[in-house]
Amino acid sequence: MRLADLSKRSGVSTATIKYYLREGLLPPGRQVNATTAEYDEDHLRRLRLVRALIQVGKVPVATAREVLGHVDDDSLGRTVRLGAALWALPQDAEPDEADPAVAAARVEVDRLLELLGWETSRELAPLSPVHRSLVVAVAALRRLDYPWDAELMAPYGELMMEVARRDLDFMETHASEAEKVEMAVAAAVLFQPVLRALHRLAQEEESARRYGIE
Amino acid sequence: MRLADLSKRSGVSTATIKYYLREGLLPPGRQVNATTAEYDEDHLRRLRLVRALIQVGKVPVATAREVLGHVDDDSLGRTVRLGAALWALPQDAEPDEADPAVAAARVEVDRLLELLGWETSRELAPLSPVHRSLVVAVAALRRLDYPWDAELMAPYGELMMEVARRDLDFMETHASEAEKVEMAVAAAVLFQPVLRALHRLAQEEESARRYGIE
Repeated sequence: MRLADLSKRSGVSTATIKYYLREGLLPPGRQVNATTAEYDEDHLRRLRLVRALIQVGKVPVATAREVLGHVDDDSLGRTVRLGAALWALPQDAEPDEADPAVAAARVEVDRLLELLGWETSRELAPLSPVHRSLVVAVAALRRLDYPWDAELMAPYGELMMEVARRDLDFMETHASEAEKVEMAVAAAVLFQPVLRALHRLAQEEESARRYGIE
Repeated sequence: MRLADLSKRSGVSTATIKYYLREGLLPPGRQVNATTAEYDEDHLRRLRLVRALIQVGKVPVATAREVLGHVDDDSLGRTVRLGAALWALPQDAEPDEADPAVAAARVEVDRLLELLGWETSRELAPLSPVHRSLVVAVAALRRLDYPWDAELMAPYGELMMEVARRDLDFMETHASEAEKVEMAVAAAVLFQPVLRALHRLAQEEESARRYGIE
């Protein structure tokens, strides 16, 4: 298809598509003559992921480029490829090691991974920005005197494992290796707004049930 | 306590505390003489919430001020107060009503609320920015051909209701009405990084279990 059709089918303006092409977020089309390039279904799929990362996931353009670079790197095995893409996604602030709440949070996160039996996460802990994000988030809760310990977190960990299993099951229905990793990244980014919105809706709902609306 | 002690106990620099005071995020201390003000435990607690909103929740200063304004508004009932605070939190982009994925997402979200029996959420749907966020997030998934329908979402909705019940149970252990609403807002903002980090960790873990690491 031509650029105009790619724009029509994706709902992304031609100016934005050209910007994504220039920024290397979308691979170039097949040049048919000096002024015309041809795009295919892979471009359409990639364009949807780029929009999802940037517009829904609020991922900066440079970060999206890095994540997609890992997705496309077929020299890597699937776990490393997915891990590299997930590790490149925006993370929270780094933990302040001088803060006693951080030390306490780290103890609880370590106990949590032991409770859950997440052996790889325990091994990768010193390297993983995702692990550090969890420590930061738990430290913030503990500083607010939220009794957020390993036992309290374990059921949420189990649920998130259910979500991850569904992600990977879904990933496995996809054809190419790049497409599989692409789906898992989309899931990691796009599920968050759904879970967040569901959480807030549930708060409203439960508050109305308990206290009424007046 | 003096400003210096408030800084020491909270781990927030005096310059940042002064900035929060100027911005109206923190109520002024009790003036004891021309150059000295006295702060109490309420200031410390509020300061922790402000840090949580801004540093962990990435909430802009102006938004944090609006959220805290609702938290402090004791002319409102608890549900409305909590709702106003939650509705003031940053939401996702507005749905594009011309997009067929948005129309399809709205149908699924309506079916979801019916399945879950969330009556208040159904009634408030036309007004609620949280409801709109959910429609936007589901539309983004459907555009990526993620089969995200009411049946698939219902178990996550049930879990988020469990989370919300724990939030409100915890809220009820707090003394003042403002403090209760404050806790619920902190939970809505601070649980997200924990859930997100747990989700990504679970993806790594499950990927390593299925495909090994190499």
